[in-house]
Amino acid sequence: MFQTFESSTSPDQGPPRLAALRAKMAEIGVQGFIVPRADAWQGEYVAPCDERLSWLTGFTGSAGYCVVLPDIAGVFVDGRYRVQVKAQVADVFTPVDWPETSLKSWLTDHGAGRIAYDPWLHSPNQIKSLKEAGVELVATENLVDAVWDDRPPRPAGEAFAHPVELAGESSSDKRARIAAALKDAGEDAAILTLPDSICWLLNIRGADIPRIPILQCFAIVSTDARVALFVEPEKVETLGPDQAIDVHPPEAFLDAVGALEGKVRLDPDSCPEAVLTALTAEVSYGLDPCVLPKARKNEAELRGARAAHARDALAMIEFLAWLDSEEPGSVTEIAAAEVLEGFRRATNALRDISFETISGAGEHGAVVHYRVTEETNRTLNSGELYLVDSGGQYIDGTTDITRTLALGTPPEDARAAFTRVLQGMIALSRIRFPRGVAGAHIDALARAQLWMAGLDYDHGTGHGVGSYLSVHEGPARISRVSTLPLEPGMILSNEPGYYREGAFGIRIENLIVVREAPALPGADDRSWLDFETLTYVPIDRRLIVPGMLSAGETAWINTYHAECARRVAGQLSDRAATWMAGACASL
Amino acid sequence: MFQTFESSTSPDQGPPRLAALRAKMAEIGVQGFIVPRADAWQGEYVAPCDERLSWLTGFTGSAGYCVVLPDIAGVFVDGRYRVQVKAQVADVFTPVDWPETSLKSWLTDHGAGRIAYDPWLHSPNQIKSLKEAGVELVATENLVDAVWDDRPPRPAGEAFAHPVELAGESSSDKRARIAAALKDAGEDAAILTLPDSICWLLNIRGADIPRIPILQCFAIVSTDARVALFVEPEKVETLGPDQAIDVHPPEAFLDAVGALEGKVRLDPDSCPEAVLTALTAEVSYGLDPCVLPKARKNEAELRGARAAHARDALAMIEFLAWLDSEEPGSVTEIAAAEVLEGFRRATNALRDISFETISGAGEHGAVVHYRVTEETNRTLNSGELYLVDSGGQYIDGTTDITRTLALGTPPEDARAAFTRVLQGMIALSRIRFPRGVAGAHIDALARAQLWMAGLDYDHGTGHGVGSYLSVHEGPARISRVSTLPLEPGMILSNEPGYYREGAFGIRIENLIVVREAPALPGADDRSWLDFETLTYVPIDRRLIVPGMLSAGETAWINTYHAECARRVAGQLSDRAATWMAGACASL
Repeated sequence: MFQTFESSTSPDQGPPRLAALRAKMAEIGVQGFIVPRADAWQGEYVAPCDERLSWLTGFTGSAGYCVVLPDIAGVFVDGRYRVQVKAQVADVFTPVDWPETSLKSWLTDHGAGRIAYDPWLHSPNQIKSLKEAGVELVATENLVDAVWDDRPPRPAGEAFAHPVELAGESSSDKRARIAAALKDAGEDAAILTLPDSICWLLNIRGADIPRIPILQCFAIVSTDARVALFVEPEKVETLGPDQAIDVHPPEAFLDAVGALEGKVRLDPDSCPEAVLTALTAEVSYGLDPCVLPKARKNEAELRGARAAHARDALAMIEFLAWLDSEEPGSVTEIAAAEVLEGFRRATNALRDISFETISGAGEHGAVVHYRVTEETNRTLNSGELYLVDSGGQYIDGTTDITRTLALGTPPEDARAAFTRVLQGMIALSRIRFPRGVAGAHIDALARAQLWMAGLDYDHGTGHGVGSYLSVHEGPARISRVSTLPLEPGMILSNEPGYYREGAFGIRIENLIVVREAPALPGADDRSWLDFETLTYVPIDRRLIVPGMLSAGETAWINTYHAECARRVAGQLSDRAATWMAGACASL
Repeated sequence: MFQTFESSTSPDQGPPRLAALRAKMAEIGVQGFIVPRADAWQGEYVAPCDERLSWLTGFTGSAGYCVVLPDIAGVFVDGRYRVQVKAQVADVFTPVDWPETSLKSWLTDHGAGRIAYDPWLHSPNQIKSLKEAGVELVATENLVDAVWDDRPPRPAGEAFAHPVELAGESSSDKRARIAAALKDAGEDAAILTLPDSICWLLNIRGADIPRIPILQCFAIVSTDARVALFVEPEKVETLGPDQAIDVHPPEAFLDAVGALEGKVRLDPDSCPEAVLTALTAEVSYGLDPCVLPKARKNEAELRGARAAHARDALAMIEFLAWLDSEEPGSVTEIAAAEVLEGFRRATNALRDISFETISGAGEHGAVVHYRVTEETNRTLNSGELYLVDSGGQYIDGTTDITRTLALGTPPEDARAAFTRVLQGMIALSRIRFPRGVAGAHIDALARAQLWMAGLDYDHGTGHGVGSYLSVHEGPARISRVSTLPLEPGMILSNEPGYYREGAFGIRIENLIVVREAPALPGADDRSWLDFETLTYVPIDRRLIVPGMLSAGETAWINTYHAECARRVAGQLSDRAATWMAGACASL
């Protein structure tokens, strides 16, 4: 099993650790210290040695930060984590509602002046906005690391080549492309600190952290298409030498940054502040030059994505058929997650799950980022909904799928809400749009049917997805704030939902990919885009109110289910094959 | 008649005027001079004395600019005006495709260095972006004015009070509100240069330019709720004195700006650069403080808007009934516009039309900003579409309505496109959305049905509308770029369209107003908004393909038409009453 279900928090350790940190603060003479959840790579998952926030406080959420002052230690968490933080931290810590309470106003309320931070863990834009809000900051060594005696070692996962047959473009071609882009921008080099950018550029993957096959490293790419790679040499030994890549130990990174000349691109949203500080050359602030090319998947990557989704669909369908064959009340959330991972492992191709499976029955479905643990585990009962959001990391692609299922006879208002969520999912699946349109412009298409009934959901409709990389990949999203135009090859999730606190949660998620739309007779002379659907797994017909669908929507779901059945024909167990016949019947 | 149909251009005057301008340039030693269409108030209409661009070049479009160099004079116009500019300017002028060709690259191509501009006619942000693009600029007196011998005098329209019964809030209450907002922002004063802001704040209207009842003036409002108004004293004499308003001649404005102390708000998108230059106090860049309060119409203004729309609907319905009673081929575009204005005048309440009526038959309907002249005038022929976009200025409200009509039997593909445009118009009319949603997020709802068929239109879906003020009023719009959240009281147009060049144009436009949505059973506990429709005039049933509409859309149009009929019952001529029975029949 990749997934574990312990609650990894140890609140009892909090008080002595906090005391040690405060002693260190006093020793070096700082009034406060910020402990963020992020590491130097600003990703979603961090290595055990970088779990500073949970080591200190016990809080294990994926976003938040602690600010330690001599007399109070605030744990700043957003709405998703208000309940969790209270259960996880000892009472020497004070949960703070964030962003409702700003860091600045909290510091003022507690009479704090200048506070210290580790410049490796914050981006220039984060520091800038704190300073603009009036927070006085001073950079320092990491004071948590200084008192963390049994800190785990840095991860030492070995890197491995990502074959060009799957990457679709050689690393040298990619490097030439990035070098040309830098030249066009009048720049001499770019600093890369996002591991998935560097893995994409060099056609490598790594094994440093769970869920995302990345190598923790830094790099500098120059207009001569050469790359200086800063990583522990033993982690890349098996890759063999590459004439265009110079490997240096991580300790050499800041000196190399300081030695750069000319105009250097640096991404102020993701680069550590420490790197900016080391730079003496002219700074050109801009998006990491790999981010957009990486998001536009090429034909080989799309072939891989289709294969990975076909494989993953078989596992999902076996799981859904199994679940329906079990007695109501006999399956727990953890058991369901374990069985699902088992079916994915049975493909013999699963490298990892792509995130912790969200397996939530009844009221747990309404917790958008629910993670089941031994403490929260409960059975899936008849008359409830069950929401399962999961995915697999395969060498040819990353998957992410959510299905919401009826257990026995679901409540009628849940069926109406489910149908509206489905209408939103179908609206995005069917839409065609001119080039230039961004996620911000189509997000409402997924919500309109919910809005008409006075319902909505408090998350974006879709996120980018990597190619055997991060399941949450920038820069494009389908959300109100994403104004970057969608471009062919971008893989996105399409996942509207509806959540009734204390009662049920609904989410339906397919992955879709932007493509040039097939020509239509009588169409304008414009460049049209639409979405190809990657995910083909039945959507629970028992939750659909057929009378609410338009003729076009009904045709879409019937065609979709027919295609689900066609794609897996002859590849299923008897149980699943029988189950599919019912699950894919026309409405 | 308010509207005239001459083509007011005189291309033959261009060469001598250009020669005189170049002589002046040589005299004061500048290499180039920019002649924009805008005046110091950055509005849509300008007074005859400010028609510098058309005086010099002959070009009468509402956007564009001329850059005069010693050897070439470029007239920069966007896609709407490419044909018109060629017909209107003499060959001493060179049309330039803008924004495809940037000013900077054009200047470089023609070896130009530093060019001069009149700082009263450009905002700080316009100047800033030109400078950032590398254009070298120097402020100077206006060189067109210097050589314009028979320049008309400045307008001398008398201001008049806008009754508080219509404004809904006294000027002193508005001033107290603005003063409080400035205090909250830590500011001591705000400079107001938008005439409709000042007219709103002081509850006055004016008669300086056509179509928009504004007073051309400037003002400074302070945290003591006092206003210094800079205007020719004779224009405001009849208003009588107000203890809180100090009237100064316009010449005193820059000195007063220079004498300001503390922190002063200035809107860098609308204020003349000359005003910023005169300011010695600390500048606080921000939106003109009147813009947002003015956009949120109060109950009295909404009552007025409903009354104005009811009155305007009677005129429109009489016009539509008249048009249908005429023989095909017997009516011209100009005649139709004249008859329509006649029906509006017959209300005895029309103060002005709110913009030049767009009266376009057949292929003219596809010209989004078509203005009929004696030269372009043509008859409305059977088998065509006719598009008429018009509005009235009434003391209680400003209207703006577009209807597209079938003349005889329209082409079948026009009916399908019309139905899709209508579906978009209905989608916005029916939508309900949570607070925080902006025009950028719902624009696509009006396009989705067109997009599905590969059709689109190249303009926003809606603009703000003033209260007996500008028919195009900021700051909110329904367009891809408008991220300002919609708020109750904002009046917007809802006008999707479709244009097939050389063939036909379709646009359907109602005005709608944002309101708190009526409660729905089972809805989320959120703040919901929706739109109240202000415009009730039949939509041509002959152009609707009923089979394309959903049940909800059909119900909407039938309810809408029933309401159109109910609202005018007993108030129409016999001809119009008979016509309404057919026009409002259920689909």
